[in-house]
Amino acid sequence: MLENVKLEEAQELIYNRIVHLPAESVPLLSALGRFIYRDVHAPHDLPPCNKSAVDGFAVSADKEIKNHSCRIIEILKPGVMPGFELSPGQAAGVVTGGPVPDGTGSVIPQEITRLEGDLLKFAGDTPPGENIRPQGEDFKAGDLLVRRGTALNPGAIGVLAAFGMSEVAVFRRPRVAVLGLGQGIVPCQAKPLPGQIRDSNGPFLATLAMRNGAQVTGVELAGEGDLSKIKNMLEKLLRQADIVLTTGGTAKGECDQALWAVRQTGAKLLFWEIQIKPGSHSGAAVYDGKLIISLSGNPAACAAGYHLLAAPVLRVMQGQSFAPERVTAVCASAFPKRGGPRRFIQANLESCQEGLMVSILSGQKSSMLRGLLNNGNALIDLPAGQPPLEKGAEVSVIVLDSNR
Amino acid sequence: MLENVKLEEAQELIYNRIVHLPAESVPLLSALGRFIYRDVHAPHDLPPCNKSAVDGFAVSADKEIKNHSCRIIEILKPGVMPGFELSPGQAAGVVTGGPVPDGTGSVIPQEITRLEGDLLKFAGDTPPGENIRPQGEDFKAGDLLVRRGTALNPGAIGVLAAFGMSEVAVFRRPRVAVLGLGQGIVPCQAKPLPGQIRDSNGPFLATLAMRNGAQVTGVELAGEGDLSKIKNMLEKLLRQADIVLTTGGTAKGECDQALWAVRQTGAKLLFWEIQIKPGSHSGAAVYDGKLIISLSGNPAACAAGYHLLAAPVLRVMQGQSFAPERVTAVCASAFPKRGGPRRFIQANLESCQEGLMVSILSGQKSSMLRGLLNNGNALIDLPAGQPPLEKGAEVSVIVLDSNR
Repeated sequence: MLENVKLEEAQELIYNRIVHLPAESVPLLSALGRFIYRDVHAPHDLPPCNKSAVDGFAVSADKEIKNHSCRIIEILKPGVMPGFELSPGQAAGVVTGGPVPDGTGSVIPQEITRLEGDLLKFAGDTPPGENIRPQGEDFKAGDLLVRRGTALNPGAIGVLAAFGMSEVAVFRRPRVAVLGLGQGIVPCQAKPLPGQIRDSNGPFLATLAMRNGAQVTGVELAGEGDLSKIKNMLEKLLRQADIVLTTGGTAKGECDQALWAVRQTGAKLLFWEIQIKPGSHSGAAVYDGKLIISLSGNPAACAAGYHLLAAPVLRVMQGQSFAPERVTAVCASAFPKRGGPRRFIQANLESCQEGLMVSILSGQKSSMLRGLLNNGNALIDLPAGQPPLEKGAEVSVIVLDSNR
Repeated sequence: MLENVKLEEAQELIYNRIVHLPAESVPLLSALGRFIYRDVHAPHDLPPCNKSAVDGFAVSADKEIKNHSCRIIEILKPGVMPGFELSPGQAAGVVTGGPVPDGTGSVIPQEITRLEGDLLKFAGDTPPGENIRPQGEDFKAGDLLVRRGTALNPGAIGVLAAFGMSEVAVFRRPRVAVLGLGQGIVPCQAKPLPGQIRDSNGPFLATLAMRNGAQVTGVELAGEGDLSKIKNMLEKLLRQADIVLTTGGTAKGECDQALWAVRQTGAKLLFWEIQIKPGSHSGAAVYDGKLIISLSGNPAACAAGYHLLAAPVLRVMQGQSFAPERVTAVCASAFPKRGGPRRFIQANLESCQEGLMVSILSGQKSSMLRGLLNNGNALIDLPAGQPPLEKGAEVSVIVLDSNR
């Protein structure tokens, strides 16, 4: 096991152990927000043939139709393919969305036509292609519609429907379990005794994972149980999940339940402790091919650990990139702390007329929850040994996932 | 009924008929993305008392403790409130997260202490407040935690958990039904005959509504049925939903199924036709207190109508604002069309180093689906009579909802 590693080392150790998930087929309406399993291409042109954009008359492609007049040879019924071609001077009745015959130059809207027996009279010009939706105008056969790993949005779902794809292959949801360790943590609905606190990391991590597309299979607290009980809980959760997140119990010393429990299962430890702040007390292990990611119990440290170590895994499992989106932004406030390890600051990234601006949220102490509340959508990534940050400085910013 | 109204008139007519939804209580883990029903304030300080941030010894608040030495009067057990106050020169053993006695000046971490009988010896200074998490540091009783109408994100869920709120009151999901009208539309899974097309608006509108928090109670197609059958379908959907969206059948003339069907139900028509492009063939009516919003059958027109007329209703029903988010951005491309009615252009809004940039998507013809696919997240709002838009011009942009 490697101890006190750099973040990128930790991430690479985790990355190498990610198991890709299989596909499952879901009805189109259930596919919203799911990640598509393979590239989808247009199976045919759309429209599949030249179509009329209006109710009216298809007229032949002559450069100039004499006296704005054509002979009507057929009135096409809805649902019928034309079995003929228009010769010069000929016209055929067509309906909106209906196919036009070969030889059509343009379609004259009904409103500007009049009939004299089988003779069509109309006003105005007939620019080539007018009121025709050409075959393949919207999509050509083979066009890439949706790329593997894309989260399906309503527009993509509409397009897949137009091509008749009523079921779609998406990545199976990653199954995630959360285990809260550490002494003195009681479930959210319990009344804590002095010195105890309610579990906020369990619901926090569970819903973060859901937002990354996961199905949460369990949110448990080890409580005051002995270490063998904790090992059993961890093993149970590992059987039901693709990945287990533990939170708390990572501080050095007596309360290092996490490391102990992980070791007891026989899992292979990948690393323990990272050179970042907050979130240094993080680790990872592999048990039966499944990742266990151990995060700190302090809320802000737990959050940073999730975004830097767990979210990338859930992304890759569903065909997306391991690396988060990263931008450069101007920092709207100063940050006085100097030096120390590489630091991740909870922040709010906003676009303004001048460009990207990032604000440091209040409540940065790793024991505090407040920083999680104020629409934090980004982490500022300050290198180790950074001098005090001045207002207006350019910083590197990780954009957090919020697709759901 | 008003005909051919301005967009703002249409919106006001709809706005005045919106019915707010009742609350429902859901478990915290099911509340992700739901809209909270009322402002939630902190019921008590967090932390509820002064707590130790480390395992170690609380020492008295003397300005200067002589010789870095204190007398230990008690070792506090986890879960026990201190029943005493520290006098000058006194110390008490405390645990991480445990309460510290009144009179505590700071907490000395265990690592830098040694014991001589009941005498605590330590190195270094004792700056006031060091290693203490003061009562109310994170939240004060009465602090606003989450504002009515906010979509609950993982951070908010973590904070509500920390305060013991295991259930949360959210707006009941709006129930939305979609009815596809117009001739020649077949279900997505059917094979269209010539002149028929598959229904893409049904799945598109249904998933747009889901993304706005709705529960979709039905997606139906009227098909080739006679008008009394359509009236019956509309009435059935109205019984099951809070709002019905129809799409298609809005063009003037023979195919005006939508207007006919709405009239036949006895619904009160609010308006029909709007002075915008695309989406002019939109209308709205009220039946038994429920809104029917009729959108065009052309995909891009249907999309514009949804975002301008339907999405605002779903937002208000769940405690959010009727008006969408609107920004000013620089247009990255020219748009040659001049004049005509007020126009909404499908676009992609991006933040770049220079500020907000909006790109016009390919496939703007209202019959085309392509514009829905290319991560369109915005509509450019061009006023009526607008001269050709030059590249680099500033435009007003509506940001589309994408919270789910």
